[in-house]
Amino acid sequence: MSLTPAASAATDREEGSEFAPRFSADGLLTCVTVDARSGEVLMVAHMNAEALDKTLWSGIMHYWSRSRQSLWRKGDTSGQIQRLEELRVDCDQDALLARVSVGGDGGACHTGRRSCFYRRVENTADGPRLEPVAKM
Amino acid sequence: MSLTPAASAATDREEGSEFAPRFSADGLLTCVTVDARSGEVLMVAHMNAEALDKTLWSGIMHYWSRSRQSLWRKGDTSGQIQRLEELRVDCDQDALLARVSVGGDGGACHTGRRSCFYRRVENTADGPRLEPVAKM
Repeated sequence: MSLTPAASAATDREEGSEFAPRFSADGLLTCVTVDARSGEVLMVAHMNAEALDKTLWSGIMHYWSRSRQSLWRKGDTSGQIQRLEELRVDCDQDALLARVSVGGDGGACHTGRRSCFYRRVENTADGPRLEPVAKM
Repeated sequence: MSLTPAASAATDREEGSEFAPRFSADGLLTCVTVDARSGEVLMVAHMNAEALDKTLWSGIMHYWSRSRQSLWRKGDTSGQIQRLEELRVDCDQDALLARVSVGGDGGACHTGRRSCFYRRVENTADGPRLEPVAKM
């Protein structure tokens, strides 16, 4: 079976060894950051091309802050530096998975918690409500 | 210390029990989906309000496909239904973390793999390249 050029490009992107990140229209990739030892999801943030480049070459996680519209080296103010242990990319190369070891107090969330995902959504008769996740 | 209204709203969003998801300008939330048993990150996708609502009330993961611009009940064609075990939300309520149990063959990726994150980025003299992650 011969593939159309579009199908061939998609196959290359999914199966090949070329790193060809697909930035969104606003120039960003989604990055899921997990603790390299426990696998716990710590946070979700975004990277532009500069943040990705600086992360790859320094081994320290850099993000793009959408709210501040600026490059952000995680930990510069909080001490919660994230050292990159491994960076993965997903099938269609529009999302990253960063396995990191965390410096400082070991936290990743600006609220002081280890993970940003410290609440769960519960269905109630009055609609969905939030409850704290145990052990955060 | 009295908080400004904006600071007070931010604190409520981060510490309160009200589920007030912050959809992006294009009406989407980022959702990180992990295997409830192993904690492995399976995929990153998006939800609009309808996908979120249907997920919460059916207990089956629904997403919004940006490429197809349509609601998507995961597994309808592949059999890889994802049953929602727990839904978490992050500090500023613009990202979700879904812990799921996977039906069908246990995979989540349309390439047939368990996780979409089956390649890692390696720095080389010729720039970053992709290598397969072991055990996928």
